[in-house]
Amino acid sequence: MSGSGEFELIASLAGRLDPADGLGIGDDAAAWMVGAGTLLVATTDMLVERVHFRLDWTSPRDLGWKALAVNLSDLAAMGAMPGRALVSVALLPGQTAIVEEMYDGLSELGRLTGTRVVGGDTVRTSGPLVVNVALLGEAEPGRLLRRDGAVPGDLLAVTGAVGASAAGLALLLEADPERLARPEAAQLLAAHHRPNPRLAAGRTLASMGLRCAIDISDGVASEAWHVARSSGVEIALDADRLPLNAGAVELFGREKACQFAVAGGEDYELLFAVPEARLAEVTAALGEQGGATVVGRVIGQRAGGRVDLLHAGRVVEPGRPGYVAF
Amino acid sequence: MSGSGEFELIASLAGRLDPADGLGIGDDAAAWMVGAGTLLVATTDMLVERVHFRLDWTSPRDLGWKALAVNLSDLAAMGAMPGRALVSVALLPGQTAIVEEMYDGLSELGRLTGTRVVGGDTVRTSGPLVVNVALLGEAEPGRLLRRDGAVPGDLLAVTGAVGASAAGLALLLEADPERLARPEAAQLLAAHHRPNPRLAAGRTLASMGLRCAIDISDGVASEAWHVARSSGVEIALDADRLPLNAGAVELFGREKACQFAVAGGEDYELLFAVPEARLAEVTAALGEQGGATVVGRVIGQRAGGRVDLLHAGRVVEPGRPGYVAF
Repeated sequence: MSGSGEFELIASLAGRLDPADGLGIGDDAAAWMVGAGTLLVATTDMLVERVHFRLDWTSPRDLGWKALAVNLSDLAAMGAMPGRALVSVALLPGQTAIVEEMYDGLSELGRLTGTRVVGGDTVRTSGPLVVNVALLGEAEPGRLLRRDGAVPGDLLAVTGAVGASAAGLALLLEADPERLARPEAAQLLAAHHRPNPRLAAGRTLASMGLRCAIDISDGVASEAWHVARSSGVEIALDADRLPLNAGAVELFGREKACQFAVAGGEDYELLFAVPEARLAEVTAALGEQGGATVVGRVIGQRAGGRVDLLHAGRVVEPGRPGYVAF
Repeated sequence: MSGSGEFELIASLAGRLDPADGLGIGDDAAAWMVGAGTLLVATTDMLVERVHFRLDWTSPRDLGWKALAVNLSDLAAMGAMPGRALVSVALLPGQTAIVEEMYDGLSELGRLTGTRVVGGDTVRTSGPLVVNVALLGEAEPGRLLRRDGAVPGDLLAVTGAVGASAAGLALLLEADPERLARPEAAQLLAAHHRPNPRLAAGRTLASMGLRCAIDISDGVASEAWHVARSSGVEIALDADRLPLNAGAVELFGREKACQFAVAGGEDYELLFAVPEARLAEVTAALGEQGGATVVGRVIGQRAGGRVDLLHAGRVVEPGRPGYVAF
């Protein structure tokens, strides 16, 4: 699902379940204690052909990488480390070679991140290729990053740069040979096809005792809204302070690149809350993990949440941004 | 996938992965230690519309029940207990109500078995409805039931009765109104739509120190073959000793009911190995959990495995039964 429909359905489904005794539906991942002192963290993501990927745009190898990466990013946003993965695939009879290559890409990222595929299911379908990854990891008890951990006075910051993945997707959609031939294009396409989950950054934030993070799978505005709603706070988000990907700015201009970052998504950077007094220390610690750029501030308590999106000095989208055209 | 193609693809995929340090691909579920003394067990199954279920035959509620049940059966076959589940669904825009009802059925079985849905993903598709459940449970360290645990001298036994689910499917396929109106039909359809995983039986077998079990998701012959291959043994399997479901015998006759049990599948009973000296004790312990019926014997070591399927006093299918017509 996309847009607000997804969240309504998830809320409806969550209401049909018994309340979990750990952290359940509504955060990037679920978490619960097992045994004496192990905090398990689990997440799952399903990718569907022609909804989430196109086989004429994405190599099977990149597809496997991405199917794992989006789950790893959920763990990163919790401050957790992988992990074991269960991989399910629904394929047409003629797609065996595609699935084998997909596994190669998945294993490649698995080796880089310490993730092992321990099981799965391969089934036949008459429809689009479907890949589901369920991923398990561990976090340090008491050191979980959550969506509901932002408090007034916190600054909001993002790791790395944003807007590259949406710019890469725009290149594929418009298929303009001139723009595709530009030197920046390859990097934007790579950002779209092979995102690098911020596992080390998430661990750093968690180990420093920070409380709140979310991964940027939708646009920054949408993720800020999730934080605002979960934490019950009002957030001022300044679009002009977003660390825009240089290639996206070069190819599409600053205004369009800013739109990609605000509403595009799939950057898989982390958006996190940090007390102002700890900003320098946290930024230094993230130096080799994408750094940190302040993009907003929690300006007060607010039941139900609120995000004020600022652009060129004025509030362009009060309330709940991200679903409306920028 | 179905038939031998599935196993070849799984073997190919497993070869592309790094070896796991726990029990990995090839058993009913993966298992590994976390923390000081917790043995985690994990499995996943994907169900695809028009391959595994038809919405004109199955109510969404029953579909949810079954999607969880097939995973619970994998845990039962390991001697593990649930658990937490992650549920992913790919649906068409108009299928929201179907998915909500599916969750109700899933939650119903979840409550009965102590399984909590802690997360999931709902995504759009342009094709068949797809449901993936990833299930986590725990087993007692050192007390795992495995496919490779059968040794010469063991008897092979099954819990409960077999053949009902395939008989139920046959009723749906032939759509004979006369046979569907018979009093036994409802129970056969229920066996097909709402299987009851043998969690208690699996725990009993594991707690008694038995080593080898598998759940009957394909026919008994196919499961015996998995045990034979994994354990490196030769098994004599006597089709005439199978505890056939009485309703299947009543509606389809003994010969057809026997075929359903041998090659039909989806009974979700357990096939397990038990030393002859412990048979009485184990059978008594399973009294309230479906009992146990001896259906075969491990007659020797055999590299690569072998099953001799006996019927009416002769070997009807030597070698690797279950994929050839009975």
